[in-house]
Amino acid sequence: MPRGNADVTRSKLLDATDALLTERPGRTPTVAELCARADVNVAMVKYCFGSKSGLLDALLERSLEGLAAEVEGLARSGLPPEEQLRRHVSEIVRNYVRYPYVNRLMTQRLMLAEPDGVDRISRSFAIPVRAFYDELLSAGRAREGWRPIDSTLFFFSVVGVCEFLFSARPLLERAYGEQIDAALVERYSAHVAELVLNGVRA
Amino acid sequence: MPRGNADVTRSKLLDATDALLTERPGRTPTVAELCARADVNVAMVKYCFGSKSGLLDALLERSLEGLAAEVEGLARSGLPPEEQLRRHVSEIVRNYVRYPYVNRLMTQRLMLAEPDGVDRISRSFAIPVRAFYDELLSAGRAREGWRPIDSTLFFFSVVGVCEFLFSARPLLERAYGEQIDAALVERYSAHVAELVLNGVRA
Repeated sequence: MPRGNADVTRSKLLDATDALLTERPGRTPTVAELCARADVNVAMVKYCFGSKSGLLDALLERSLEGLAAEVEGLARSGLPPEEQLRRHVSEIVRNYVRYPYVNRLMTQRLMLAEPDGVDRISRSFAIPVRAFYDELLSAGRAREGWRPIDSTLFFFSVVGVCEFLFSARPLLERAYGEQIDAALVERYSAHVAELVLNGVRA
Repeated sequence: MPRGNADVTRSKLLDATDALLTERPGRTPTVAELCARADVNVAMVKYCFGSKSGLLDALLERSLEGLAAEVEGLARSGLPPEEQLRRHVSEIVRNYVRYPYVNRLMTQRLMLAEPDGVDRISRSFAIPVRAFYDELLSAGRAREGWRPIDSTLFFFSVVGVCEFLFSARPLLERAYGEQIDAALVERYSAHVAELVLNGVRA
């Protein structure tokens, strides 16, 4: 297959998987369903991604790269560190809403702990985001008097505080009788931003 | 089987499962392995817990109840709110170290989202811990000038910040080349305590 056609097919399959996972969270579509939605031959998942698992890895990577691109945009924005951190936290929370499958896919990949899957998450997400924190925490210390903070530990704490609401959604619903809707996401995003922004101050 | 003997068998099976899951994280033992380690007849898993999944739920519940008991101890301690929060955060982090399977079991149960499994986590953990936060956040506001903070959102942010290091351990190892050892756990616990304690201040 010519390279251009393969790229189109890859995109169609990624878009179809994004759509089906968003429509039916928690249920992984079959290869037949994915190919029907993408309007491509069923052999194309194997041809383009090696397997359905490879397709899911590529989809996770694509959405994490989108988040990393937002981080790079913030780093170049010239905004004050505090404003960059506020927007960044809000972008992470919104990313979990926009791509409701990211949390589950990332959790599954981390639980499996297969080196290739972990390395794709590292390259597309963990390494660029920690590099952003390195610069941001230095700039915040120099310009806004933040405390000295380890960027590696900061990565786990910031991502953890943003993602657990989505991982633990069944507890929100059954323990506390609340739903993840736009209003709750807005409240959570503001809550996390205040907690983290206060948290970094001296 | 007399009630007392069944309780002894239950405890033996829970202890054996705790030991095997701690020795070999990420690998669920077979029923035969569990019963051999507990030195009980292989029919006892079904008799005492209905199934292996029921045994794992009971083990998770037991360790979460331990955490909830620590929370109740703190609530009755008469310590200042800041000191209670510092100790509480450290207890959550240490709990993930002491019971290395809790994180994985809780994540699996939340991903499955079966009502019974979620309700057991709610009763043993989410409801008592949020009740503790309700009192603590009120006391902190009254006595130490903390900001007004929603206890439900606080639950997800505090547990999330503590647990993600353990969920995302493969990223720590492969993206950043670090290991979870006693020194790192100590640093993370101190990092989280500072972030959260600064975070609640006005």
